[in-house]
Amino acid sequence: MSERTANILRSVRSGRVPVRAALERLKDLPYKDIGFAKIDNHRALRRGFPEVVFGAGKTVDQIVKISQRIITNDGILLITRAPRAAYLRLRRRYPGMKYDAKAMAISYRARLAAPKEGTVLIITAGTADLPVAEEARLTLELMGNRTEILCDVGVAGIHRIFDKRRALERAGVIIVVAGMEGALASVVSGLVSKPVIAVPTSVGYGASFRGIAPLLTMLNSCSPGVAVVNIDNGFGAGYFASLINR
Amino acid sequence: MSERTANILRSVRSGRVPVRAALERLKDLPYKDIGFAKIDNHRALRRGFPEVVFGAGKTVDQIVKISQRIITNDGILLITRAPRAAYLRLRRRYPGMKYDAKAMAISYRARLAAPKEGTVLIITAGTADLPVAEEARLTLELMGNRTEILCDVGVAGIHRIFDKRRALERAGVIIVVAGMEGALASVVSGLVSKPVIAVPTSVGYGASFRGIAPLLTMLNSCSPGVAVVNIDNGFGAGYFASLINR
Amino acid sequence: MSERTANILRSVRSGRVPVRAALERLKDLPYKDIGFAKIDNHRALRRGFPEVVFGAGKTVDQIVKISQRIITNDGILLITRAPRAAYLRLRRRYPGMKYDAKAMAISYRARLAAPKEGTVLIITAGTADLPVAEEARLTLELMGNRTEILCDVGVAGIHRIFDKRRALERAGVIIVVAGMEGALASVVSGLVSKPVIAVPTSVGYGASFRGIAPLLTMLNSCSPGVAVVNIDNGFGAGYFASLINR
Amino acid sequence: MSERTANILRSVRSGRVPVRAALERLKDLPYKDIGFAKIDNHRALRRGFPEVVFGAGKTVDQIVKISQRIITNDGILLITRAPRAAYLRLRRRYPGMKYDAKAMAISYRARLAAPKEGTVLIITAGTADLPVAEEARLTLELMGNRTEILCDVGVAGIHRIFDKRRALERAGVIIVVAGMEGALASVVSGLVSKPVIAVPTSVGYGASFRGIAPLLTMLNSCSPGVAVVNIDNGFGAGYFASLINR
Amino acid sequence: MSERTANILRSVRSGRVPVRAALERLKDLPYKDIGFAKIDNHRALRRGFPEVVFGAGKTVDQIVKISQRIITNDGILLITRAPRAAYLRLRRRYPGMKYDAKAMAISYRARLAAPKEGTVLIITAGTADLPVAEEARLTLELMGNRTEILCDVGVAGIHRIFDKRRALERAGVIIVVAGMEGALASVVSGLVSKPVIAVPTSVGYGASFRGIAPLLTMLNSCSPGVAVVNIDNGFGAGYFASLINR
Amino acid sequence: MSERTANILRSVRSGRVPVRAALERLKDLPYKDIGFAKIDNHRALRRGFPEVVFGAGKTVDQIVKISQRIITNDGILLITRAPRAAYLRLRRRYPGMKYDAKAMAISYRARLAAPKEGTVLIITAGTADLPVAEEARLTLELMGNRTEILCDVGVAGIHRIFDKRRALERAGVIIVVAGMEGALASVVSGLVSKPVIAVPTSVGYGASFRGIAPLLTMLNSCSPGVAVVNIDNGFGAGYFASLINR
Amino acid sequence: MSERTANILRSVRSGRVPVRAALERLKDLPYKDIGFAKIDNHRALRRGFPEVVFGAGKTVDQIVKISQRIITNDGILLITRAPRAAYLRLRRRYPGMKYDAKAMAISYRARLAAPKEGTVLIITAGTADLPVAEEARLTLELMGNRTEILCDVGVAGIHRIFDKRRALERAGVIIVVAGMEGALASVVSGLVSKPVIAVPTSVGYGASFRGIAPLLTMLNSCSPGVAVVNIDNGFGAGYFASLINR
Amino acid sequence: MSERTANILRSVRSGRVPVRAALERLKDLPYKDIGFAKIDNHRALRRGFPEVVFGAGKTVDQIVKISQRIITNDGILLITRAPRAAYLRLRRRYPGMKYDAKAMAISYRARLAAPKEGTVLIITAGTADLPVAEEARLTLELMGNRTEILCDVGVAGIHRIFDKRRALERAGVIIVVAGMEGALASVVSGLVSKPVIAVPTSVGYGASFRGIAPLLTMLNSCSPGVAVVNIDNGFGAGYFASLINR
Repeated sequence: MSERTANILRSVRSGRVPVRAALERLKDLPYKDIGFAKIDNHRALRRGFPEVVFGAGKTVDQIVKISQRIITNDGILLITRAPRAAYLRLRRRYPGMKYDAKAMAISYRARLAAPKEGTVLIITAGTADLPVAEEARLTLELMGNRTEILCDVGVAGIHRIFDKRRALERAGVIIVVAGMEGALASVVSGLVSKPVIAVPTSVGYGASFRGIAPLLTMLNSCSPGVAVVNIDNGFGAGYFASLINR
Repeated sequence: MSERTANILRSVRSGRVPVRAALERLKDLPYKDIGFAKIDNHRALRRGFPEVVFGAGKTVDQIVKISQRIITNDGILLITRAPRAAYLRLRRRYPGMKYDAKAMAISYRARLAAPKEGTVLIITAGTADLPVAEEARLTLELMGNRTEILCDVGVAGIHRIFDKRRALERAGVIIVVAGMEGALASVVSGLVSKPVIAVPTSVGYGASFRGIAPLLTMLNSCSPGVAVVNIDNGFGAGYFASLINR
Repeated sequence: MSERTANILRSVRSGRVPVRAALERLKDLPYKDIGFAKIDNHRALRRGFPEVVFGAGKTVDQIVKISQRIITNDGILLITRAPRAAYLRLRRRYPGMKYDAKAMAISYRARLAAPKEGTVLIITAGTADLPVAEEARLTLELMGNRTEILCDVGVAGIHRIFDKRRALERAGVIIVVAGMEGALASVVSGLVSKPVIAVPTSVGYGASFRGIAPLLTMLNSCSPGVAVVNIDNGFGAGYFASLINR
Repeated sequence: MSERTANILRSVRSGRVPVRAALERLKDLPYKDIGFAKIDNHRALRRGFPEVVFGAGKTVDQIVKISQRIITNDGILLITRAPRAAYLRLRRRYPGMKYDAKAMAISYRARLAAPKEGTVLIITAGTADLPVAEEARLTLELMGNRTEILCDVGVAGIHRIFDKRRALERAGVIIVVAGMEGALASVVSGLVSKPVIAVPTSVGYGASFRGIAPLLTMLNSCSPGVAVVNIDNGFGAGYFASLINR
Repeated sequence: MSERTANILRSVRSGRVPVRAALERLKDLPYKDIGFAKIDNHRALRRGFPEVVFGAGKTVDQIVKISQRIITNDGILLITRAPRAAYLRLRRRYPGMKYDAKAMAISYRARLAAPKEGTVLIITAGTADLPVAEEARLTLELMGNRTEILCDVGVAGIHRIFDKRRALERAGVIIVVAGMEGALASVVSGLVSKPVIAVPTSVGYGASFRGIAPLLTMLNSCSPGVAVVNIDNGFGAGYFASLINR
Repeated sequence: MSERTANILRSVRSGRVPVRAALERLKDLPYKDIGFAKIDNHRALRRGFPEVVFGAGKTVDQIVKISQRIITNDGILLITRAPRAAYLRLRRRYPGMKYDAKAMAISYRARLAAPKEGTVLIITAGTADLPVAEEARLTLELMGNRTEILCDVGVAGIHRIFDKRRALERAGVIIVVAGMEGALASVVSGLVSKPVIAVPTSVGYGASFRGIAPLLTMLNSCSPGVAVVNIDNGFGAGYFASLINR
Repeated sequence: MSERTANILRSVRSGRVPVRAALERLKDLPYKDIGFAKIDNHRALRRGFPEVVFGAGKTVDQIVKISQRIITNDGILLITRAPRAAYLRLRRRYPGMKYDAKAMAISYRARLAAPKEGTVLIITAGTADLPVAEEARLTLELMGNRTEILCDVGVAGIHRIFDKRRALERAGVIIVVAGMEGALASVVSGLVSKPVIAVPTSVGYGASFRGIAPLLTMLNSCSPGVAVVNIDNGFGAGYFASLINR
Repeated sequence: MSERTANILRSVRSGRVPVRAALERLKDLPYKDIGFAKIDNHRALRRGFPEVVFGAGKTVDQIVKISQRIITNDGILLITRAPRAAYLRLRRRYPGMKYDAKAMAISYRARLAAPKEGTVLIITAGTADLPVAEEARLTLELMGNRTEILCDVGVAGIHRIFDKRRALERAGVIIVVAGMEGALASVVSGLVSKPVIAVPTSVGYGASFRGIAPLLTMLNSCSPGVAVVNIDNGFGAGYFASLINR
């Protein structure tokens, strides 16, 4: 931030800007206050991607207003856990708006980013883990990553993952999405020299306790090279993967 | 029990046994009350193996008295979580008494049983899981089973287990002993058509929560054919395996 | 797998198969990739029973496609947590398809297997545990086992189980299904010399915490010879019992 | 309390006691403030037994001072979790002082109470549960109850409890002390028409979680007529049993 | 049971009953097997009250059949968590049938029992705890106890309970029903010399965790004389109170 | 209470009041018993604010009756978790009755209180935490406090809170309402010399476990000066803040 | 911070300070980096009290170095969980250094602060809760508050607290320290119109789970006006109380 | 693996290698079986770093034997949770062996790796988190990474982290090590566009539950870009960071 501050100081020295105004500018932090929300306009600069909207618990009106502000600012929009109604409203104004029903996410990108070279491979243990995987894939693609999905290769038939050795080799980063006992993350990590981001899902029953079982499995992986995000948090896994994909 | 009861009834009918005495006999259940313990003499008949002594929290005197009673009755003795001092006392009287330091178990068998045909394979994920595996092995051998141990084949280097395919094929029953995330049970079960008895261990740290993580992993195994015993319960796994080994 | 590999190697030596093709074959692992699922065709060979479909969270279309593939391959089908709609669609094509409403399971068997000799006895503590017991029974029968069910013999009136001594004696394997405090598994195990597979159920209220109370009870059974499967997992208990039934 | 208050009021009316003094007396609640402790002298009157001292975390000096005060007041003393050193100091002054090493409790009774008619039966599942049972027995006897102990009759050999039917019939109240899975409370309760007070103990290992498993078992007992006290709380069980013993 | 057995033995001796028939009788335990349920006819004799039906998870048909059997046998019926529909069906046949909507319980008593002398006082912390209190009251009255209810006297305004001193004094047994933090049980117990049965309820929010907070509070009561039943288990508290009410 | 008691005593001495009547008055504690509830009329005197009604689980009739009694007594009413129907009924009689839909609370104040000087600042981490914040604000205003709300300033864009330094400085007390990981309370507390009351909310998913994650975060704040109330308990936070606001 | 910033800006305008130096000053945040620790010199200004040192896990050398720096800066020092050895070292240099053995805390105050007018009352349920209460008292006194301690007034003999009404009335703020079931906080809060800060302690056994039971009790207090700090956190309670004491 | 397999196949075709020998080679998986351990020689090739030895629970002899094997194979060694005795033995043979007392780790590197360009910044919230940070640093340096450590910048004095903006900017990857409430990870992540690996530590007391509190905080971070490893798992964080550092 020192460049901007130095400019303000120079303006003060030259007398172009009075002390009071400079004080205000130094305080003027870059976000937009629209009452029920403070949109962090600065985030795309600071973090490389604008604020992502968590749709659950917001009204359609709130979502639309926040979305317009973000698109104006950054040209990219991602809303997770989004109601379809918000999509329908937004599409009227932004025809390029997309809705991914599996991931329950709204997305928009004004200009296509030049994709990164590396590929992120998303692996699911079962078919029921797909919605979480889709949320990860969507996040990754919006952030300019190539992705590949390998579905239903859980450890009950572990030869299925060995057969996909080539996909494992192609990837620069791997996301493993698994519920039930979540053993797949350890197994995959043991086969590769790449970072594995593990996403426990709430798929399972009884003593899986809505995702606690795979969460603990993944945190305790006997194979190093695994880091974990929250239960069902496909967006978080995708975001993290994008940060480390080259 | 009807045979014994029928005999008592016949004795009553024939007048050989008066009603009062028959009443006593019908009530006379087969155990030995030695005050601080009631030794279940009947158990070897009813369950195929005498009462196993849980050594922790008993004095050496108590252990010795209980042990003498069981040996007299059944000729076989197993004490888990046993203090070495009890072993030293017992060995004076029973030279064939054995102490397994790794498993912390005292054992004795007057006559060698004709071993069963089937083999029980015990697999551990890591070296630290060995004491639990030893407890299982000892229990199995005392109950007349052949055993084989495969040590340190955790999923971090999963090719180690694939290399041991033949051992997997030889076994009639498999015990998997694993701490940390406990994924090995699911992987092994997915490779074979044999029952897998999973023993979670308290090996691990942080979020393994002294065995809760592998316990949940094993209960939620996505591969059917796995049943679970208590954390660190090598004895329980061995006992169960012996019941199903042919 | 060495037989198949040896054949491939012999074909290479004889020149019948070029190196590149042999490489492919060695990699060609036996499953069918139908996009959203990878059906493990090899499982019936490897594990003695084809892949079992977990119906929850799958569309009817997905279930139907997966089912056709499995029936073609193996002639046996089991779908747990199955929607009735999937059954109705499947029945049109396979008139022998069955739906068990209590267990919420679809099943199909092209040819009747010669039943095994041993009987598996399923015992429930209460009437409310019946759906889980039914899931176990169905799984067992599909896998060629004789079964017997003893219902509502919980420990509140423990003489009911003593009266069924003969059924306990007849059985080769026993499954105990119990919610609330789950004490029945320990009691039954203490009476017999047979393996007891314990299934905790989510039946109960308050501090049963949807099955945690009986799960802990069963894991801590003071009577050896008990192994445990996941809460409400009748299928898992049946599958495991079939593996150990003679 | 109205009798005492009426007397004070009458004294005021008659002029024998001025208003200010009466005010003080009405406020004068019956306990003794000795700085680090407020001894509830009134408790023996209000609750039928004086305050019981929890010895853990108190210095010997504190224990001795509190004890003298209670003995002076009520002639009965019970200290649970008591250090032996406190006993040695107290015995010098009160030769009748007793120390129960198993229960780790100090007790004293100036005059023997006429014992109640009813008997409280204390049953333990295993030998390791004895210290908790002893704490209950000691409390009961100090409060003037007859007791009987049945030790080591856990459900692994359930015929041992059936053989003790007569002891069950003799008792007016039953205390069941059990660790591991704690199933004994349900079984005993199912056999009798008497109240069963269940004490879970921290005896066990792995998933008994230091008493949580038997605590949940006992709270969820499928057999009505069971109430539960804290883990290892033999004193609490004895105290409650004394309140209901006739 | 020895009286009945002695008679059988005498019949055998006298030749009136052949051995085989005697064997059958000795085995003939007193319950009625109606397929989906085994009704414990013997329970009223053994335990002083017939089997209580847990209505949840049973069909109306099942409830009706079980109810008829119990009424025929014992003339008393209690069904907890009962669907209103079952009541309507039963009332057609038994006009004296009653339904308590607050407690969601069906009850019936052919002949009024001579009430016991003692009174059981039921205290609730808040208005929302009433349904659980009602279940306790109904159980108690059916078992021939006099009851009194004190409602909404939680510790936030503790003078309300002090004002009810007389009710506390009248009672022989006290049941405290409380959710949220459940402190009322300790406070009441500290005031009286009577047994307090504490029932935690799932009333509360956030960190009350559906009854865990008051359950722990009650188990840890610093005031002895408190025993605890399961969360929301008004029936269990009433049943236990009846066993100890004189 | 001594003033009132002294007066009664003086009346007794002077003979104006007989002993029996004085006894009654001394016992006459100030609440109104309306059967299903005991309204604590004394609370406004004793605690500075009348009893607050927890609307959940009460019928509209019960709420209306309790409300009338409180308004008559104190002229102020607050009902949390209130059904709209109760509001509609109450408004007919009390036109000044208000309903805050976001907070789901009914409130009424006959006379406006002179507001306190200090301001309570309520800060939320996200938009979804607003209903809890509203409940706090409403409680505060009814109790005569000035409030200010800062919304959506979570630590993901921490400059938003730094920009609001002036609001932080203005406030005498700060309430922080946050779900997910709840880190905002620690951060805010580290910036100010004022008490921070932290309210964890159940906003979040997966491993936030309906508010447990922010609850633990707030209890473990590395910055002193934070105290915590129950999950989602905006009312409790507002009430506590009012007690400490000057 | 705007005053300091304005001064810097004025210096720049007047040419007294060059832009580069001003930049440094604007960045120069007020803490001292001594390698293994960054001492927050600014804290006494920002928060009204210097950084408090958590002694556990620091070497004596580290503690001494940090302490010297804080005393030089602020003249006040508080070290919680402090080893006696650190005290002995510090006393050599600062004769006024104090060690409170019960609270295990080192404290120092160069100049006595003019005490605040209000009194903070600290109440403990039992004698074993005293060390936590002492930590609170020490913190309060160092921060210039008058304190009073009421010890051993738990709810088992609730009249002891009623007798102390005057102390309750004198206090401006109340801290309640309680283990076991922690009911005292709710009871005290129900009697007063003052803020109650509740400190759960790890005193208790069995199902108190090292403080979880009283923590939940206090969070769920049915009496508003209670806020909670971490288990055994006497310092945190004292610090918070000082912030709100007038 | 296809290159090695192709070579074997080519040897078979050319007749140089008979089928049986080829079969063996194809099976010959690259690890060394030394009885109590199976050393995964292949891991350095497959995963870029040799097997890391978990020292806890292994004898010095076992550690020494495993270490020799790994050094011979790969020239790099890392042993975490290592006993000093093992270091002393190993140093005799390998003078370059190092022991890091803070991290309790033994390390050895035959040849210095050319360091990677990127820097990994390790930040700790407090001084007590240092041992975990050291374990991470050591792992990183052994794997050829540049590291930087920022110590004691917890959110209680958040300006300390803002002052270190430049270090944040220099880093390619950031590891945040924090106990207590663990809020630092969210705050740091909100300031940067780099991946943040969060390590919860067991530092804290009371309701931090040995690391559960910061673990949940980090999993629920409201700021995306955070992934989590096990409690106290500095090694895991360092290993993962090395995989993503460029």
